[in-house]
Amino acid sequence: MTKIAISVGDPAGIGPEITIKAINNLLPKFSNLEFFIVGPLNIIEYYWKSNNCSFEFNVLNQKNLNLESKVNIIDIGDYPISDIGSLNQISGKLSFEAIEIANSLILEGKCDALVTAPINKITLSMAKINFIGHTEILKFLTNTKEEVFTVFELSKLRVFFLTRHIPLKDVSKNIIEEKIIHYLRKMSFYSTTLFKSNKPIAVAGLNPHCGDNGLIGTEEKEIIIPAIKKAQQEGINVIGPVPADFVFYNGKKGHYSSILSLYHDQGHIGTKSIDFYKTISLTLGLPYIRTSPDHGTAFDIAGMNIANPVSMIQSIKAVIKYSKRYLRKLYFF
Amino acid sequence: MTKIAISVGDPAGIGPEITIKAINNLLPKFSNLEFFIVGPLNIIEYYWKSNNCSFEFNVLNQKNLNLESKVNIIDIGDYPISDIGSLNQISGKLSFEAIEIANSLILEGKCDALVTAPINKITLSMAKINFIGHTEILKFLTNTKEEVFTVFELSKLRVFFLTRHIPLKDVSKNIIEEKIIHYLRKMSFYSTTLFKSNKPIAVAGLNPHCGDNGLIGTEEKEIIIPAIKKAQQEGINVIGPVPADFVFYNGKKGHYSSILSLYHDQGHIGTKSIDFYKTISLTLGLPYIRTSPDHGTAFDIAGMNIANPVSMIQSIKAVIKYSKRYLRKLYFF
Repeated sequence: MTKIAISVGDPAGIGPEITIKAINNLLPKFSNLEFFIVGPLNIIEYYWKSNNCSFEFNVLNQKNLNLESKVNIIDIGDYPISDIGSLNQISGKLSFEAIEIANSLILEGKCDALVTAPINKITLSMAKINFIGHTEILKFLTNTKEEVFTVFELSKLRVFFLTRHIPLKDVSKNIIEEKIIHYLRKMSFYSTTLFKSNKPIAVAGLNPHCGDNGLIGTEEKEIIIPAIKKAQQEGINVIGPVPADFVFYNGKKGHYSSILSLYHDQGHIGTKSIDFYKTISLTLGLPYIRTSPDHGTAFDIAGMNIANPVSMIQSIKAVIKYSKRYLRKLYFF
Repeated sequence: MTKIAISVGDPAGIGPEITIKAINNLLPKFSNLEFFIVGPLNIIEYYWKSNNCSFEFNVLNQKNLNLESKVNIIDIGDYPISDIGSLNQISGKLSFEAIEIANSLILEGKCDALVTAPINKITLSMAKINFIGHTEILKFLTNTKEEVFTVFELSKLRVFFLTRHIPLKDVSKNIIEEKIIHYLRKMSFYSTTLFKSNKPIAVAGLNPHCGDNGLIGTEEKEIIIPAIKKAQQEGINVIGPVPADFVFYNGKKGHYSSILSLYHDQGHIGTKSIDFYKTISLTLGLPYIRTSPDHGTAFDIAGMNIANPVSMIQSIKAVIKYSKRYLRKLYFF
């Protein structure tokens, strides 16, 4: 049995809708799942009705957590249906509370893993919740001091990111040999323990044609190749740099355990261009595994019942695959 | 009738093999094609035999060019079969001569368009031919002084490149408002005349999340958005910046006439991650249209008869689609 906590994200966005649609899609296919949806009951019911859902659900509160069924809702208080799609501080506040309670369910042993639906940093900020995203909130709530890793997964393609939310012009100065080696060690650990892959890790090149032997940028020659060689000497199964316009195509075919993308858009383009909605995000390094769609709250289409639940479905499938392995082996390392 | 000149590229590489395989694949499907293959006759015959090709061919020389059939070979002299796969100056010299003759066939009105198989800059340099690639050779041979444009095409996805073979760290300083507007004018021209599309042009963002309103890089706010607005004021149908991790996925669905990629790997990853082999390159701005596979000579597998001809097939299909339109309308603008 896998018990999955889901925070519905910003109730004014598409999070509750894709959550309900995903559960309705997955329940008939998996017999050994239990869902704990954390969010405003009225909003969840609204989407449950408008999608003519076939599943039944049980409303829990903190006192009757043991009376669980396949689908359980932990109500955090109503959110006005008429305010779906509008930016306001109440939805920001409820976004945070849903994550808080979902996190507690796992830390208390009631659930195995967390799937988070999208939140919005503007409404969080309106509610004076000063975190820029889920990762920061979850590090805070779990008191995680160590680095956590965001991994994109799209079928056989898995991508780690050496750098993320920095301007493109600052990427080069953040390509540091020791940091690459550190990432390769972590990736190697996850390859063995979590992904169960004996394929090599591939490092993407930074410059066109991997710098063409120094003619188009020197980072490959001076930093990336030496880092890969040192990691190989440590016994890490890693190759590269592989030209960035080939590495994701090759990764898609299952040739690598994972790929190290050197900057945000490199790995984002390499996965989402193939399938924007099936690309999901894993967070590794917390006390439990957390997955999520990588898209946003999409306020513009919230409430219209046209949101695509594929990314949410994939996110749930990923925790089904990884949560037990993660809990058993990966908490400490 | 479309008459297609094909230079077989470096005879020691996979160029002749993919040329023969592509023609063998396409001839039964298109009744109105004539091919003029320029390369060493013995090498072409070698692959023709080893692939059990069903088509017949006619060997021409400069004097009997009128005795043409569906497949014509212009022999440029033998290349030793035993030297397939090895780097040497003869193959570099023959690579250049094949392009020279193929170009002449078009300029003299014998052919409509050019498809080039891969050449190798090392063998070119060994033969003391000081051009870095096809584009430079063809500009020289056609005496083209104007800028030429490389466009990647993958089904409905077409990508222009604002910058190309420069280090990633130098991209930012090459994002210039006037240059973007200049590119958008050219792209708008080709959208109407060549691609026959009334969809908008999309400009990719440079930074993660298009700079997130200046938080992660300022180029969008300061340069890219103003350039797009000015182009719109000129009547150009352009939108953006569109996040780079969405624009290629959306372009693949046919939502844009073309996409402006701001740097080499952005558009390369955005197309080739989807399909490495089906992505081809068009060169626009020469007196005729030229297409080519974007992959290299692959000396490591040359002669083994395992090379994938898909990119060559797509390159030929693209000139079938575009050559007449291009010749009629696009020579001067």
